[in-house]
Amino acid sequence: MGETLEAIRKSIRENKWTGPTAGHADGYVQTNLVILKKDLAYDFLLFCQRNEKACPVLDVTDAGSYVPAKSAPDADLRTDLPKYRVYRNGELVSERDHITDFWEDDFVAFLLGCSFTFEKALLDYGVPVRHIEENVNVPMYNTNLPLHESGIFKGSMVVSMRPIPAKDIAKAVQITARSPKSHGAPVHIGNPEEIGISDISAPDFGDAVTVREGEIPVFWACGVTPQAAAIASKPDLMITHAPGHMFITNLKDTDVTI
Amino acid sequence: MGETLEAIRKSIRENKWTGPTAGHADGYVQTNLVILKKDLAYDFLLFCQRNEKACPVLDVTDAGSYVPAKSAPDADLRTDLPKYRVYRNGELVSERDHITDFWEDDFVAFLLGCSFTFEKALLDYGVPVRHIEENVNVPMYNTNLPLHESGIFKGSMVVSMRPIPAKDIAKAVQITARSPKSHGAPVHIGNPEEIGISDISAPDFGDAVTVREGEIPVFWACGVTPQAAAIASKPDLMITHAPGHMFITNLKDTDVTI
Repeated sequence: MGETLEAIRKSIRENKWTGPTAGHADGYVQTNLVILKKDLAYDFLLFCQRNEKACPVLDVTDAGSYVPAKSAPDADLRTDLPKYRVYRNGELVSERDHITDFWEDDFVAFLLGCSFTFEKALLDYGVPVRHIEENVNVPMYNTNLPLHESGIFKGSMVVSMRPIPAKDIAKAVQITARSPKSHGAPVHIGNPEEIGISDISAPDFGDAVTVREGEIPVFWACGVTPQAAAIASKPDLMITHAPGHMFITNLKDTDVTI
Repeated sequence: MGETLEAIRKSIRENKWTGPTAGHADGYVQTNLVILKKDLAYDFLLFCQRNEKACPVLDVTDAGSYVPAKSAPDADLRTDLPKYRVYRNGELVSERDHITDFWEDDFVAFLLGCSFTFEKALLDYGVPVRHIEENVNVPMYNTNLPLHESGIFKGSMVVSMRPIPAKDIAKAVQITARSPKSHGAPVHIGNPEEIGISDISAPDFGDAVTVREGEIPVFWACGVTPQAAAIASKPDLMITHAPGHMFITNLKDTDVTI
């Protein structure tokens, strides 16, 4: 299993690689995927624009095209993610390695930034990332932070949490602020109750992580937000990546860092 | 003529203020305005998303609404700009103080970031802004920098130019990079020919400014870009602000600075 972008994409396209992408293709921007039919695309794009911290748009295909022209013009979004989820009327109906058979002429694919870019930056600067240390999924929580509505899309923000030593919090803010396409600076620091999180040890998605003495929970807007809002709107048909099985673009992390 | 936001907006709404807004409502974000019919809104929003440096979207109204809910929920976009331009089939047909009579149920208003936010920051940090010193409009140029197309919207980037002393260029880059909603970092520094500008003393829009010994022309993506692309697409009906007669939002410059 080669570690160049080309080799990884080929392995994924040929179904030799069907696992998560986290920690692979070092330095390349990975994204969330949401595919909707064209009649919902305007409202969804506007929803993302109105809630940019949670839904940073990196690329949107022309209607019917499975080629992300801006971020990976040599890729095919029907085959180049290791695992997809197909939803009908808001219900998960199947997981697939490819979606070529499902592709429709009026599909629009949205590529949305994820947290991998800023997590790598945190590690590079010596800030600990607990769920990576503990080899589990990042803990994610529903909050009372309202989102701006657009058409049928609405809801509250989902956040991810990383416990950060007090001495490193300023550094963590500065580092992540430089990556607005990867959710940017934290939306909340400390006091989980204030944003509607009653039990930090019981995340709504992902896994709990250890919060050590002297650490403060720091919350970032999470890419699950747009997906959750889209599912809640119960579109006839919608396709997403499977959690952790992201699309790897041709963009480098440095291309989207300020 | 009061200088609070409330007083300025009231003066504009009552047609007592019909002049430019530059240099007024200190600290508040001012924006470009583009109003299109709903059938073009998706392609235009996507055009802006694909060309974010030139077309930073700050707010988009719901179809038919003249209230920018995110950036100024107490404002009325039919009356709260000092001067508007009405275009039919890409031709300027009139300038108006109000557009209440022109408003249609399927209008969508786009508020796009302008350079005032970063110019104020440059001045605050002691970087000279020549066209302000010389009390003329910023020089703007057509370039050969291609834009990503979306539907009928396409074209090349329009840039604005500010001559910066060599010792201040790094500072100018750092300061403007922090304002992605105000066009962000420069797109080009020095050598105008390289981006298709043959004569720096003959701008395509605005006025020429003095470039002094030891200064280098620095080019930023310009908010005229989306307006020029929209006009070139010859929509049936389109309304914009008149140059320099911007919309003043309730957002502070600090709200959109990283």
